[in-house]
Amino acid sequence: MRLGAVLYNDFELLDAYGPLEMFGCLGEELEIVVIAEQKGGVTSSAGPQTLAEYDFEDAPELDMLLLPGGVGTVPELANDAMLTFLKTHCPKTDINMSVCSGSALFAKAGLLDGLQATSNKMFFSLASSQSDKVDWVENARWVDAGQYVTSSGVSAGTDMALAVIERVFGVDRARMISEFTEYQWHTDADSDPFAKFLNQADSAMLG
Amino acid sequence: MRLGAVLYNDFELLDAYGPLEMFGCLGEELEIVVIAEQKGGVTSSAGPQTLAEYDFEDAPELDMLLLPGGVGTVPELANDAMLTFLKTHCPKTDINMSVCSGSALFAKAGLLDGLQATSNKMFFSLASSQSDKVDWVENARWVDAGQYVTSSGVSAGTDMALAVIERVFGVDRARMISEFTEYQWHTDADSDPFAKFLNQADSAMLG
Repeated sequence: MRLGAVLYNDFELLDAYGPLEMFGCLGEELEIVVIAEQKGGVTSSAGPQTLAEYDFEDAPELDMLLLPGGVGTVPELANDAMLTFLKTHCPKTDINMSVCSGSALFAKAGLLDGLQATSNKMFFSLASSQSDKVDWVENARWVDAGQYVTSSGVSAGTDMALAVIERVFGVDRARMISEFTEYQWHTDADSDPFAKFLNQADSAMLG
Repeated sequence: MRLGAVLYNDFELLDAYGPLEMFGCLGEELEIVVIAEQKGGVTSSAGPQTLAEYDFEDAPELDMLLLPGGVGTVPELANDAMLTFLKTHCPKTDINMSVCSGSALFAKAGLLDGLQATSNKMFFSLASSQSDKVDWVENARWVDAGQYVTSSGVSAGTDMALAVIERVFGVDRARMISEFTEYQWHTDADSDPFAKFLNQADSAMLG
């Protein structure tokens, strides 16, 4: 099986690397590849760069796709190359996952219409304003709608990843990975301690 | 202020990127740089590559240093270039942090002698066998010994990072970052739900 992480400049580090840590523990059963509009360094919002080995033209077939969020989501909402890539690849990928504001991009591409989905709490309206045909769930750590699994903000993606590993590889495998990584796994998708911060974003809050 | 993440091939993704997520939320107050023995791509054990912008020769002065663990720790224990880099840079860096088996490298370099320190649970003896002059703490999420802060396995590094942010930037800042990243922060360094797995590594368990 193959999982592709689709990155773009100013993606949020943990959105990508929380899930990739958990999927990476599957070892040789799952190949992880990194895809971006152009090959080479993709700069996270925190600074460190990840190397994209595939671009949108030569990206391989995927079984799973992971789309992080981050402040870079906003310019990507107007990037036809990104939206076209998602519209082309997601429908033929078994499981498409987004973290945080990544669901805004899935929604903008029309991929979530008719489905339940969630997004990060503080900037929830960034996602929900992209499509009124999505059943947006405000109070959820993640939402598993089958082919599309969307998670709440940043850290929630790690719990979503373990839930997807449980679905595909079994609960024992997911539990072993959480123990190996000393991760206190939150197994209840409906328990969302951060729902109280809905749309309370304050760009100054992180100073 | 400047934080340097010191990477090597087969590092564990979340060891590096859990802490870097939290430190990255400090914004312009902290510059994050990536250092490795050679510039260019450093391959994680899960596959994705991070770009090192500095090598051991031109690494800048640091205020904080972050050293992840991973299966790549074992060959690095015999890498004089790595040990020399740590012996040269850590003593002049205010706060040196390790995650998981990273503390084995600090210990091998003699930097933890006379201090309390911890490491990941399943492979604890990899670290503790490097020096009998370290006061190894088996039951700890992380140990703050002042200039050296060592954390337990993988995910524990994220809690350690928030504790260091609390120490340097205040508890309000740390709490805001944990809320922004929707992270259920474990604030008790002495609470270690994974201590029961001490040295119970089974290389086949993730097989």
